[in-house]
Amino acid sequence: MTDNFKFYTELKVRYEETDAMSVVYYGKYFVFFEVARTEYLKNIGYNYTDIEKEGFYFVVAESNCKYYNPARYDDDLRIFTRVEYIKNSSFNFVYHIIKTAKNETLSDVKIASGSTVLVCVDNTDFKPRRIPEYLRKAIQDFEQI
Amino acid sequence: MTDNFKFYTELKVRYEETDAMSVVYYGKYFVFFEVARTEYLKNIGYNYTDIEKEGFYFVVAESNCKYYNPARYDDDLRIFTRVEYIKNSSFNFVYHIIKTAKNETLSDVKIASGSTVLVCVDNTDFKPRRIPEYLRKAIQDFEQI
Amino acid sequence: MTDNFKFYTELKVRYEETDAMSVVYYGKYFVFFEVARTEYLKNIGYNYTDIEKEGFYFVVAESNCKYYNPARYDDDLRIFTRVEYIKNSSFNFVYHIIKTAKNETLSDVKIASGSTVLVCVDNTDFKPRRIPEYLRKAIQDFEQI
Amino acid sequence: MTDNFKFYTELKVRYEETDAMSVVYYGKYFVFFEVARTEYLKNIGYNYTDIEKEGFYFVVAESNCKYYNPARYDDDLRIFTRVEYIKNSSFNFVYHIIKTAKNETLSDVKIASGSTVLVCVDNTDFKPRRIPEYLRKAIQDFEQI
Repeated sequence: MTDNFKFYTELKVRYEETDAMSVVYYGKYFVFFEVARTEYLKNIGYNYTDIEKEGFYFVVAESNCKYYNPARYDDDLRIFTRVEYIKNSSFNFVYHIIKTAKNETLSDVKIASGSTVLVCVDNTDFKPRRIPEYLRKAIQDFEQI
Repeated sequence: MTDNFKFYTELKVRYEETDAMSVVYYGKYFVFFEVARTEYLKNIGYNYTDIEKEGFYFVVAESNCKYYNPARYDDDLRIFTRVEYIKNSSFNFVYHIIKTAKNETLSDVKIASGSTVLVCVDNTDFKPRRIPEYLRKAIQDFEQI
Repeated sequence: MTDNFKFYTELKVRYEETDAMSVVYYGKYFVFFEVARTEYLKNIGYNYTDIEKEGFYFVVAESNCKYYNPARYDDDLRIFTRVEYIKNSSFNFVYHIIKTAKNETLSDVKIASGSTVLVCVDNTDFKPRRIPEYLRKAIQDFEQI
Repeated sequence: MTDNFKFYTELKVRYEETDAMSVVYYGKYFVFFEVARTEYLKNIGYNYTDIEKEGFYFVVAESNCKYYNPARYDDDLRIFTRVEYIKNSSFNFVYHIIKTAKNETLSDVKIASGSTVLVCVDNTDFKPRRIPEYLRKAIQDFEQI
């Protein structure tokens, strides 16, 4: 299921991210997705802060998540991340989160998967702008799309 | 667009919910959805705390959100909420969020819409359980579904 | 203990604010304090958004909280709030949070108390600026300090 | 200022942790402190999850933070952490956060410092219990207190 992902990042569940069911609150996965996007862009050579300095924001237009198994405090999560398509001013990210086994006798556990659609906008009027060419090319090269 | 909603709840955007774009962080809408679910259930006569005391959790199996316009600090949001279907152990909530106008010369603004699928599970093993009949009936009566 | 407070605001604990101990996460009280500050200023006639539009930020320089009893999901909290002092560019807020009883046979429960020191800064360079006179006067009049 | 600290952990600021001032929200530093506590305990050989499995919670009784300079999205923070004292059922943590320089021509920047008092309680009644001896000893040995 993660065969077509060329990138992943890892994080550890914080106590703050759990709720009274002792599992990660459903809304926190969108924070994990954000961390993954940041690291994905860095991995192909770009800091999102630099993109903002050029006058752009990448705003989220759509998001979704499916939850398979609960994650808990101190779990080690691996977030597989890829871009499926890139259009004129929008592109998406697809995520697949697993809990990595603490030792070899255990298996990885499928936690959640989801996606977000991002739109490149001008940071003054929030109107769509064409995604910068260098970034488009870097993503297309990395994903071979 | 909100004609078929029989319930709404209101909240005011907190500074904590904004991010460096000066708008509400995309993941916070799922917190707003949670507030709306809690108040929806209360409106038809049930506290979610009481449902938990009977040994159930309502866990989120799927969630999604579309973002139309940014909401900002101190905005007054109205979250229209309804249940579209209720199955054996799962049901959904649909949400539509608008920013209510501060005065009569302004119009309401469409902010976001989304949905969540909830599954009734046993709070010890997280296995699906049949939704309690009193709650099923209360939702069906309220929504006429 | 709340005799010298002339203002309070109320809120209800969200599921998102709880953690795996089934109580409100200790860091969330600072969000509650923020809500209280916003409502306090509104109560004496000022929106913090308008203050920002004039080119100021009120940044937090110090914060603290003492925790007496845990608050839980769906608890109704009342946050007593007052200003103790106002200097050239800084002033403080003091908070006292109680859980209000759900019915008359129960008593209010002391949850937490704390304070924050705020500094009025220029929103371009974050350097201290004199607190606007109208606001200083409004606070002094309200608190009789 | 960090000379008497024997441990630090690092993290990177997430977009979610920023607010409309484009800086880290003041309440998020308490989340950073939590991450630091978790890693501190792990560093001396203990997982907080294991302590919870023995029937204890470490609840926060007091917390405070002083803010020196704003941290921003994607900043690399280093959280120096130590225990100053350990009593029968309570102990504290002291934290000092710096932003580490992105390159050698820049200096580290002092961001915030704070402390928390933790109380070891029974996880059923939240009453204070004596801190487990193995943990007390491990902390005393590590800190030489």
